[in-house]
Amino acid sequence: MNIISGKEVAGHISKRVKDRVDELIKQGKRAPKLVIVRVGDRPDDLSYQRGAIKRMDMVGIAHEELWFEENVSIETFYKKFDEINKDDGVDGILVLRPLPKHLDEDRLIRTINQAKDVDAIGPTSLGKIMIGDKNGFAPCTAAGVIEILKYAGVEIGGKKVTIVGRSNVVGRPLVLLFIGLDATVTVCHSRTKDVKEACKNAEILVASCGKARLINKEYVANGAVVIDVGINLDEEGKLCGDVDTDSIEGIAAACTPVPGGVGAVTTSVLASQVLCAYENALKV
Amino acid sequence: MNIISGKEVAGHISKRVKDRVDELIKQGKRAPKLVIVRVGDRPDDLSYQRGAIKRMDMVGIAHEELWFEENVSIETFYKKFDEINKDDGVDGILVLRPLPKHLDEDRLIRTINQAKDVDAIGPTSLGKIMIGDKNGFAPCTAAGVIEILKYAGVEIGGKKVTIVGRSNVVGRPLVLLFIGLDATVTVCHSRTKDVKEACKNAEILVASCGKARLINKEYVANGAVVIDVGINLDEEGKLCGDVDTDSIEGIAAACTPVPGGVGAVTTSVLASQVLCAYENALKV
Repeated sequence: MNIISGKEVAGHISKRVKDRVDELIKQGKRAPKLVIVRVGDRPDDLSYQRGAIKRMDMVGIAHEELWFEENVSIETFYKKFDEINKDDGVDGILVLRPLPKHLDEDRLIRTINQAKDVDAIGPTSLGKIMIGDKNGFAPCTAAGVIEILKYAGVEIGGKKVTIVGRSNVVGRPLVLLFIGLDATVTVCHSRTKDVKEACKNAEILVASCGKARLINKEYVANGAVVIDVGINLDEEGKLCGDVDTDSIEGIAAACTPVPGGVGAVTTSVLASQVLCAYENALKV
Repeated sequence: MNIISGKEVAGHISKRVKDRVDELIKQGKRAPKLVIVRVGDRPDDLSYQRGAIKRMDMVGIAHEELWFEENVSIETFYKKFDEINKDDGVDGILVLRPLPKHLDEDRLIRTINQAKDVDAIGPTSLGKIMIGDKNGFAPCTAAGVIEILKYAGVEIGGKKVTIVGRSNVVGRPLVLLFIGLDATVTVCHSRTKDVKEACKNAEILVASCGKARLINKEYVANGAVVIDVGINLDEEGKLCGDVDTDSIEGIAAACTPVPGGVGAVTTSVLASQVLCAYENALKV
């Protein structure tokens, strides 16, 4: 079984972004800029932010943190947020979510400037995926899955794809991305009666259900390509994906590892989408 | 095989809308209002407009036609369109499409006020389906399919649904609507290798591929519910759907006819969405 390294894919995307940013700087233009909005100090958020900042530095994208205390008032939060939302010097905004309940995440989703919505949390960005708008963005994780398959040379057109999970950040946008790429797509989830049957039928299987090592050899067809989007802690507190990699050895043709798979690609997709937002803004 | 009458479903929805409009009028409020935008005089458009007007009259929704000659300039078109787009007295806008090429339909899709986009042509409306926003709209035909199933008492949660066709007005939005209703969904299309296999596996089958009577008994599982979205002319110039109804007799549990099926429901869904847009506006 071929293990597809997310790090390699990330390196490939990052190089493309860095080359373009270097070119723009040489032309005398300013660097693209990302603002990361964070509320409180959740370890997950801090860890993701560190990774994102490292990546932006690597490719030459400027960044700034907009940080709030956990108990920030809704007025203060949206006053500051609206400023960066309007600021012409900011190309992309990444909000580390979920927000604390009192900050009304729905309002955030409705207000975020869609031109800067580089992680596609707003309905306009998500709708653009449906109509195949090339200037739109997809949630970075969903877009990362497609980038991995493309990098690994896996043909998508005409293939049977099964996605386990229907979240707004992975399952739902991925269905539309795969349909747009000519795949025949099945989505299953907690209410699906026979998840095994749906998975066993897939040539490309995307696991994004958040259940540690659920997907074992009983779910995987011979020769399938398996993309593991899960990040879980197992009973021993060890980081693991939704796929039981040992079990599918000798059955699947390829699989992404956890860690070092999809998760490793996300920040480079983010960088690529910030660059895209910047270039879209230049065109206007 | 039970034939599900679209007319009956339409009557049911229309009654609900009319009762509510009557109630609002009694409270001294103005009637909801739809503007139908039409360019040129295509027979299809005229026929659809006639049906829509008849329906709006039936339920007490005011309507107005905004008509342009086929060769209207893009400036004139968008000047007028922007006026109704901003007019607080207009709750819903239905644009009969496709527009002539020179009118840049992409611009229309980007500009339409999402609060009035009662046939869900803009990305924001489509994205709202993805995040399950209850104040959003779905394309009337896609929403009509769901209304038919609900009216006919067909349980959707946990069912295997296959959709043949991936258009922006039917297939793609329907996937998201069905996922939101807990179905396990498969989408197939022209690039699918084995459409029969995907269809035969379905408990609910939606045919929206635009191929006269393609879906025959070889595609349908015993006891399946079949919804026929197709409107085609057969070799003899006779109106027919995507389903060969005679062939699936004794196999499918139920099927919608063409004409008199999904097509008959569309304008009542439109009326319902105009009312919804009006009530959303009242709330603001």
